[in-house]
Amino acid sequence: MQLVKIYLDYLCPFAWRGLELAYVVAPQLGLDLEIRHYSLEQGNHPENAGRPRKAPVWKLAEQPLESSPSLRAFLASHAARQQGKAAHLRFALELFRLRHQERRRLDDETLVEAVGRAGLDLERFMADLEDEESRRLELAADLEAAGELGVFGTPTFVLPSGDAAYFRFTQLTTEPELATNLWELFTAVLENGAHIETIRRPQRERASR
Amino acid sequence: MQLVKIYLDYLCPFAWRGLELAYVVAPQLGLDLEIRHYSLEQGNHPENAGRPRKAPVWKLAEQPLESSPSLRAFLASHAARQQGKAAHLRFALELFRLRHQERRRLDDETLVEAVGRAGLDLERFMADLEDEESRRLELAADLEAAGELGVFGTPTFVLPSGDAAYFRFTQLTTEPELATNLWELFTAVLENGAHIETIRRPQRERASR
Repeated sequence: MQLVKIYLDYLCPFAWRGLELAYVVAPQLGLDLEIRHYSLEQGNHPENAGRPRKAPVWKLAEQPLESSPSLRAFLASHAARQQGKAAHLRFALELFRLRHQERRRLDDETLVEAVGRAGLDLERFMADLEDEESRRLELAADLEAAGELGVFGTPTFVLPSGDAAYFRFTQLTTEPELATNLWELFTAVLENGAHIETIRRPQRERASR
Repeated sequence: MQLVKIYLDYLCPFAWRGLELAYVVAPQLGLDLEIRHYSLEQGNHPENAGRPRKAPVWKLAEQPLESSPSLRAFLASHAARQQGKAAHLRFALELFRLRHQERRRLDDETLVEAVGRAGLDLERFMADLEDEESRRLELAADLEAAGELGVFGTPTFVLPSGDAAYFRFTQLTTEPELATNLWELFTAVLENGAHIETIRRPQRERASR
């Protein structure tokens, strides 16, 4: 099995598509997926502007729960993680689908629904979520690792080779052959000898306000 | 022949590598290369910060010659262009090599050297360069087209399909088979049905100052 880490934020529709892609190709290509977290709220926070990514002053893991649209989902993700890697992956996938396919809010009701759909032990999940201090410490460590790596958006994949990249696409692909082609294209870009750093389409802007 | 437009800035080493790549693959793949210009100085100018790319207030083509490290090279590029597309391409390639391989400054001596190496008519080049008003108008039109397209860096390639992307790599490849593989990888990314918008490696930052 080849370990592939995926940095995700539940707020991000591109992260959702990236996780669906990885989920389809993992069994075919023998990938062992590990979910990690990167916070768009923290990364784009005005107080962190101009600072190195590994030295933020505004840290999501230290904020009050009510103030953030994403903190509760991250803590729930770390609670789900206590039930093992496979359970964590299923939970993340179901929560992304609830948010980005069914347009549900990232509130407690949605989190519990994701636990149910993913087949996790709800009682254990609630107990782990209530141990908020431990979950905050885990999240802080995760966001710190993302900062060290220089992650700036989601999804960011880290391949077994150590190559890492942000990978953004707009058309969800779950058909196995298309998904495999797309994944192999992505890895071929990262492994090409020219050391490709960036491929990015320009965006035509709408008329200025 | 398939028309491929390349937006370039002579200041940019990635644009140099991109042009070398296109130059190697063009005859093999039947590409008709057309050089266009995008200005990093204009795009990154503080007075243009936060403004739509197609509505800059600080415009390179209106600046005094002495104030800019890139304006003279752009005007010379438009002067070379008067001698035809193939001559323009050879001039651009030689000027990039002088700047980024031989570390020469983009001054008059270097421009004349590029004219010589590219086999252009020097007298005609000088006369066209002296018609500064016409060259500035051409440059302004070029930079406006780049702004409309949303170009944000160089090199940016526009394929016959209309797909466009910034393409940054660090290892120069002029070996024909490797170059063809690299070009085909780039076009495969742009033409994939998932509509890939971005692949970009995170950059580990050095210790903060």
